[in-house]
Parts: sequence; C-alpha cells; structure tokens
Amino acid sequence: MTSRSHDVQPLSHLTEVGEAHMVDIGAKAPSRRTAIARATVSMGRQTAARLAEGDLPKGDVSAAARIAGIMAAKHTSTLIPLCHPISLTRVAVDISVAEAAVTIDCVTEATDRTGVEMEAMVGASVAALTFYDMLKGVDRTITYTVSLLEKTGGSGDDFRRST
Amino acid sequence: MTSRSHDVQPLSHLTEVGEAHMVDIGAKAPSRRTAIARATVSMGRQTAARLAEGDLPKGDVSAAARIAGIMAAKHTSTLIPLCHPISLTRVAVDISVAEAAVTIDCVTEATDRTGVEMEAMVGASVAALTFYDMLKGVDRTITYTVSLLEKTGGSGDDFRRST
Amino acid sequence: MTSRSHDVQPLSHLTEVGEAHMVDIGAKAPSRRTAIARATVSMGRQTAARLAEGDLPKGDVSAAARIAGIMAAKHTSTLIPLCHPISLTRVAVDISVAEAAVTIDCVTEATDRTGVEMEAMVGASVAALTFYDMLKGVDRTITYTVSLLEKTGGSGDDFRRST
Amino acid sequence: MTSRSHDVQPLSHLTEVGEAHMVDIGAKAPSRRTAIARATVSMGRQTAARLAEGDLPKGDVSAAARIAGIMAAKHTSTLIPLCHPISLTRVAVDISVAEAAVTIDCVTEATDRTGVEMEAMVGASVAALTFYDMLKGVDRTITYTVSLLEKTGGSGDDFRRST
Amino acid sequence: MTSRSHDVQPLSHLTEVGEAHMVDIGAKAPSRRTAIARATVSMGRQTAARLAEGDLPKGDVSAAARIAGIMAAKHTSTLIPLCHPISLTRVAVDISVAEAAVTIDCVTEATDRTGVEMEAMVGASVAALTFYDMLKGVDRTITYTVSLLEKTGGSGDDFRRST
Amino acid sequence: MTSRSHDVQPLSHLTEVGEAHMVDIGAKAPSRRTAIARATVSMGRQTAARLAEGDLPKGDVSAAARIAGIMAAKHTSTLIPLCHPISLTRVAVDISVAEAAVTIDCVTEATDRTGVEMEAMVGASVAALTFYDMLKGVDRTITYTVSLLEKTGGSGDDFRRST
Repeated sequence: MTSRSHDVQPLSHLTEVGEAHMVDIGAKAPSRRTAIARATVSMGRQTAARLAEGDLPKGDVSAAARIAGIMAAKHTSTLIPLCHPISLTRVAVDISVAEAAVTIDCVTEATDRTGVEMEAMVGASVAALTFYDMLKGVDRTITYTVSLLEKTGGSGDDFRRST
Repeated sequence: MTSRSHDVQPLSHLTEVGEAHMVDIGAKAPSRRTAIARATVSMGRQTAARLAEGDLPKGDVSAAARIAGIMAAKHTSTLIPLCHPISLTRVAVDISVAEAAVTIDCVTEATDRTGVEMEAMVGASVAALTFYDMLKGVDRTITYTVSLLEKTGGSGDDFRRST
Repeated sequence: MTSRSHDVQPLSHLTEVGEAHMVDIGAKAPSRRTAIARATVSMGRQTAARLAEGDLPKGDVSAAARIAGIMAAKHTSTLIPLCHPISLTRVAVDISVAEAAVTIDCVTEATDRTGVEMEAMVGASVAALTFYDMLKGVDRTITYTVSLLEKTGGSGDDFRRST
Repeated sequence: MTSRSHDVQPLSHLTEVGEAHMVDIGAKAPSRRTAIARATVSMGRQTAARLAEGDLPKGDVSAAARIAGIMAAKHTSTLIPLCHPISLTRVAVDISVAEAAVTIDCVTEATDRTGVEMEAMVGASVAALTFYDMLKGVDRTITYTVSLLEKTGGSGDDFRRST
Repeated sequence: MTSRSHDVQPLSHLTEVGEAHMVDIGAKAPSRRTAIARATVSMGRQTAARLAEGDLPKGDVSAAARIAGIMAAKHTSTLIPLCHPISLTRVAVDISVAEAAVTIDCVTEATDRTGVEMEAMVGASVAALTFYDMLKGVDRTITYTVSLLEKTGGSGDDFRRST
Repeated sequence: MTSRSHDVQPLSHLTEVGEAHMVDIGAKAPSRRTAIARATVSMGRQTAARLAEGDLPKGDVSAAARIAGIMAAKHTSTLIPLCHPISLTRVAVDISVAEAAVTIDCVTEATDRTGVEMEAMVGASVAALTFYDMLKGVDRTITYTVSLLEKTGGSGDDFRRST
C-alpha cells in the first residue's frame, strides 16, 4: 500500500469493506439531469454496402431498435444491480445509417437525485443489440461499441467526451 | 432493382412487406445450441494502471457484473423485441482483468428450436454495463465493445470468429 | 396536402420526422392527476344467465381480476413503449357483475408531470383479460371493450365521456 | 342447489372450494397450438377521416403498436395470474387501418401442454392500448374491443368465431 | 487442507474458483418434478385472537396472498440469480388460518431438467410477505418462517422433511 | 359482533366491503422513511460447522445473496400486489455468517408518501432465498425467518422491535 492510495477516489458503489450497496442519495436535492450515450454498430463491408444500396429491407428495423432502446432505458434499474429507480422525463433514440456503420444516440432526462447516464448507456446498448438481432442472419461479425457522449446536472462537473 | 437482389438473403425478422414479426420456429426440432459472446471494456491508462496495481477496491465488482450478466441473459426475450423465450440450460460469465481492459465472456446453452447467441450478447453487454456503472465515478471515458465469438447447433453452419 | 393540415394537432409521441420518442415532460410541474377507465366484458346469454344464477363459482374470480388489474396498472410503462414511469398514489378496481356483462372500473391517481389515463386503461384491460381467462373454458365468445370515462389534472382540459 | 348444476362445466382455474390455482397440466402431452385474437380500435369520425386522409403522421405508430403487442404476448404469464409460462414459437401482429377503425390481429403459436389464446388476447390488447396512447392527444373517445377469432390444438374442440 | 475435505459435497452454483454460474443441466433428461414449501406466519396473541374471532375483515386477504404467491413462483428465475427458467405445469397455494398463525403451503410441479423447490420456496415467501403487508398496520411484530416440506423427481433422492 | 369491534383498527388495504385496493396516499406529503428487516437463515449443525470451518467455498455466495436482495427490494411493488411503486434512495444488505446461522439485514430508505418496510422485508427474504438456493445441495433442511427490526418516518409512530 503506497501513500498514493490516499488520493484515490473510492468506488461509491462499494462500502469500505468492499461490499456492493445502492448508494444513499437521500440527502441530495432533485435537479435536472441529462445524458447522451452513443452506440456504434460496425458491420462487414458487404453488409454495409448492401445496407447503403438498399438491398436489405429496412422496414421496421430502425423502429424496432428505437422502441427497444426506449423501453430498455426504463428497465435500467432492473438490469444494473446498483442503479436507483428513476422517473425518466424523456427518452429519445436517434439512429443514423451510414456506409460502414449505424450510429445510435440515446438521450435521457430526469429531475432526480442521481444522474441518468446509465439509462442512456442501457438504451443505446439494447438498440444496438436489436440491430444485431435483426442483421445477424446476414452478418454475424457485426460488433458494437458504446460510450458516454455527455452528461449534465448534479453536483459534479458536467462531462463531454472529447473527439 | 437489379438481378443481384435475387441472391440477397432476406431478414427473417421482417415479413415480405417489411413488418417486424417473431419468426415461426414451430417446425424446427429442438437441438443443443451454444454461444459465446465477448465484451471488452476499455478504460483510460490511469484507470487501467490503478486497477492493475490494486488501487481500486474490487471486492464485489466482478461478482456484481457476473451476476448481472447471468440475470440479464435470462431477460433476453424481454429486452429484444423479436427474440423467442428460451429455457437456458447454462449461463456462465467469465471475467478477466488485464492491464488495459476487462474481458467478459458470456457462455450460453440450451436445447431449443432457436439459437442462444442473443442471450450471450445480452449477458456480456449487461456485465459490461455493470462494470461501467461501478467505475464511472472514476473514469467516464470507459467504452465497451461486444461481438459474438462463436455459436454452434441448429441447421445453419456453426460460426467461429476469426482472429 | 391541403391548407387544413396547418391546424392539425400533431401526435406528441412522434418527432417531426415521424419517429417514436418518449415526450419531454421535464419542464412541467407535478400536479395531481386522476383517471377512470372502464372495461365491459360481454358474454353469451347462457353464460350471463348462469353467472346471474350463481351456477358458476365466483370464489376468487373477482379477487383475481381485481388484483391482476392493480398489478398491471403498475406495469404500464413496461408494456406501453412511450409511457413515462409514474409513481401511482392510488389504484382501485371496482367490479360489478350484471346480467349480461361484467363492468370493471379502474381508478388511478398520481402527483406527477403527466397523466395516469394509460394506467387506468391498462388496469381495466388486464382485469378484463383475467375474467376472460377464468371464463374461457365455459364461453370462448366473450369479448371486452375498453374506454376512458374521465381524466382530470394537468394543463389540458379535463375529460368526461358523454353518455 | 338444483339438479341442473350437475351438468355445469366447472371453472378449471378454481379448486372445488373456489380458490384460484394454476391448473395442473403435467399429464398432458405437448402438441401444436395456435390462436388468433382481434382488437378493433374505433375512433370518432373526424379522427378516422383524418387518419384516412393522411393528416395524422403514421410514421412509427403501427411499428410501435406491433412491437408492443409482440413483446406483451411474451409477458402473458406475468400479467394474467393463472396463465402458465409458455415458450411461444411464433407471434405476429397484423394491423390494417380502415376508414373508421384500426383492426389488429395477433397470431400466436407454440408446442406446449396448454393453449396460446391468452397470449393472442394480450398481444392484441396491448397493441390496441399502444394505438390509444399514440392517438389520445387527438381523440380521447377512442375505444377498443377484443375477441378471440380462432384457436386450434389440444384435446378440446377447435374454435372459430362465427361471423 | 485436511483429508476430510475430500468427501465434502461442493456447491454446484460455484465454479472451482468460487465464482457464481448457472449450472449446466443440458445433459439431463427432463423428468417430472414436484415440491412443497411451507411458510408459517406468526403473529402476536392479540392479532391472532382477533383474526380467530373474525374481528379483522379477511375479504380479499387470502385471495391476494394466494395470487401473489402463484405469480411470484413464476418470477423465480428473475429473482434468484442462478435459478434456471422453468415452465411450471402447476402452482397451488393453500392457506389455512389457525389461532396463532397462518400456514401457507405452496405446491409446484414441472417436467424439466431441474427441480422446482425454489419456485415453491419463492411462492410461499411472497404469499407470506403479502399477508405481512396486509396485516402490518395492525401488528408489525408479525414474523414468517419458510422451509421445504418435500421434493420429488430428478436423479437425487426425494426429500421429505421429518416432523 | 361485540362492542369491542368499534375500536378495531381496520385493514387499510381493504375497502369497507373487504375488497383489495392500493391505498390512496395522494394527500400525504413526501417525507424521509427508513426501515430495517432481518432474515435469519438457520441450518443443520453439520452445515453450520462446515461453514464455520471454511469447508464450504463461500466465494460469490454472499455477493450473490447481497445483490439479489438489493435487486429484489427494487421489485417490491411488482411482487406485492398492493404496494405502491417507490423510488428508493438507498438499499444495503449486510450479511454476517455465524456458527449456526446467517444473519441478513436489509436497510431501505426513500423520501416518499409511504413507508419502505415492505422493500426491506422483500430484500431480506430474497437474499435468504438466494442463500437457500446456494446451500440446498448440501442441506435441504435450512429454514429462514424474517421480521421487521425498525421503521421510521411518516405520520405514524416509529417502530423498533424489542429484543
């Protein structure tokens, strides 16, 4: 144990003895929170080309992914063990299909005692998983990557991912 | 419409007019299916170094991610609109913490009429999201990427991701 | 496109380009909301007569329908894609068995940023479905109809169904 | 107690003393089951005319209702107290928008020890509720009616609604 | 490490390195399984006496507890992290109110690759919790105790609790 | 019916005619609520001795029980028919393994119109059930008992279990 460990920021989801708990946020005042997470669905050249050329029917695909993402954002505290239940006031999932990838941005908002970034991350992830599910019969090498683009509100600093 | 479109593999989750439906698998015989999906959680150098040096308490972190992944795999048909309900006979989530990343492999098995790859993808994703939730107070730039490593069983070819 | 379309009230659940999203209610102040929805379960003459005469055991039937309706009202944001999660402060399901039909009124209340009419509609519907489930072995021609009786609260006008 | 009561078909969901229970189907052999339920969403003349004229944007509306119906069919045993969990092998929700009404047919199939009619009824109902949710800002007088069109499979007679 | 450890039965829910996983039951053949769990709800003398004398209205209380128990048994694999999803073929909750206690027996059955004792334990527990919820305004000292009465089926020995 | 019945405290979960409903709490002001429930898991001498001696691997067992308890507390209004949905601000599950028993304390907090004791009771119960699930292969005679240790907040008196 070096002296450096004194300035280490602890993990709030763990007690001092390293046990998981749902953090006490009872003393915080509700404030407006927003977050945006992005999932990028990358696919093989052929699939991308065919998507771009419209060879693959898109019908309900984007709609299904969008709705699955919105519904999953509402499930966040069911899925992620230590997330607090939050009454989301807004969820939007924006999908854009480009040549080599599908980009999915999930926007979440609430007026609450804790942030909504996990809701955005979950929404983007499940929308991406729904795309995978729809396209896997054509291309099983598809991968997706998720990251937080920004979050605002609460007592901490706002966050914006540098690009 | 070019002649090429004749050999295009359609998306089974869409009807001929492009509407989403849950594919009819009633005529298939149940057979043993397996899948493995991998999530790679990438973090900033500092976070990785601190994790490697043991500065961050890990106590329940891996256990929470593992259990969240297992439970999420069972939720797959609730989350992904067109997935069939499946009685999984096995779910395992293996986590290894390396210097620059956490690797999460989710293994799923069932004896059923359809594959279990979405269950593996969902399990790996939610385990990764749980890691993100635990570590986000320390590093919000963490990202995670998910892909299918392999699947076996069913009438189609087995799949193994080339590396 | 006629000029009339200028005064058409748009659907708030769709963005300008027609994509589904969960409406932003963050700027609204919480206020008391109430709603009542009614389901009318209609059955064949014989079933109705036998119900009226007490030939069919009713034991737990009404209780099961009532509890299923209450529990379903709490599930509303899980079932209806674009509904906001709401902390209901009251749910009651009143059931009256008449000669030719069962009438189910579901009353919901909350202090929130959006109305509780979908919660009442869902509660009444699932109570009716539970009746159908109980009675279907005797009469599969049973149908049920659901409508909103009234809603109050929020910035819009109150609504009361004319009879 | 009259002698007539001897030929009364009892309610299988109740024990002899009138208590609700989930019927024992363990001795039945799995067989193929299908069902179709229909929800008819009726709306005011104006709304119908506007829908027919395309004044109301339909974008994701039908897609959202279809997906909500499919997902709800999978939730049936969660919502209806005495329904057995069933591994559905197919769910489809067909929606047709006519002048005065929207017609929603939910088709379900499974190879199981009990029927899938409740799954069809729930799927049709929740698709209708989703339509209501989307259109309620324009017309709160919308009502919907649900009935079983047909069911096949199992030891009992097949059922087809006479028209 | 003593020699005794050689005859210690390991915990099947943990891997050799002590990590939780959902046990592989894929190689087992489905067979008929049954279980009965009992919850005993004990209350203060006064509450018991009043219940016995009929001073406390019982109306829907038993019905609510019974239905909550049945529905919870179906939720078992959602609640208990390492339980396999099981298609229960029967659930019954029998409740008897005696002078000093309420006795709740939950019976579960399935034809599956693993046992249904957790389903019986969960059903009995949630029925007991529902009783507590109903009666807590009158008596907060109520406690409840749950144990397995018997289980049959599978490759292991049947179990019957000795009394 | 004796005169005593006039001072009998009615069950708030039932209407005057004995029907279950979700109590109207709309007129109450939100205030801070806390509760602690305890589950005591009792096991046979041998199991206890082996646990104490460390013969049984404990690896993820406590972590799984802790996380299952936390997640279940968030499910309370889904499981218990007449519980209001509550936005918990804190959940902690403390587990101590002693010679003859495992003691599980579940602490819950919220700022809401109703208490959080059911959330604590459910969290403790499901943590206990998870222990049972993990240990049942070694000892099926394990039982568990749940009671409320304390609750604070709201208009009623605080409660502390006497020992």
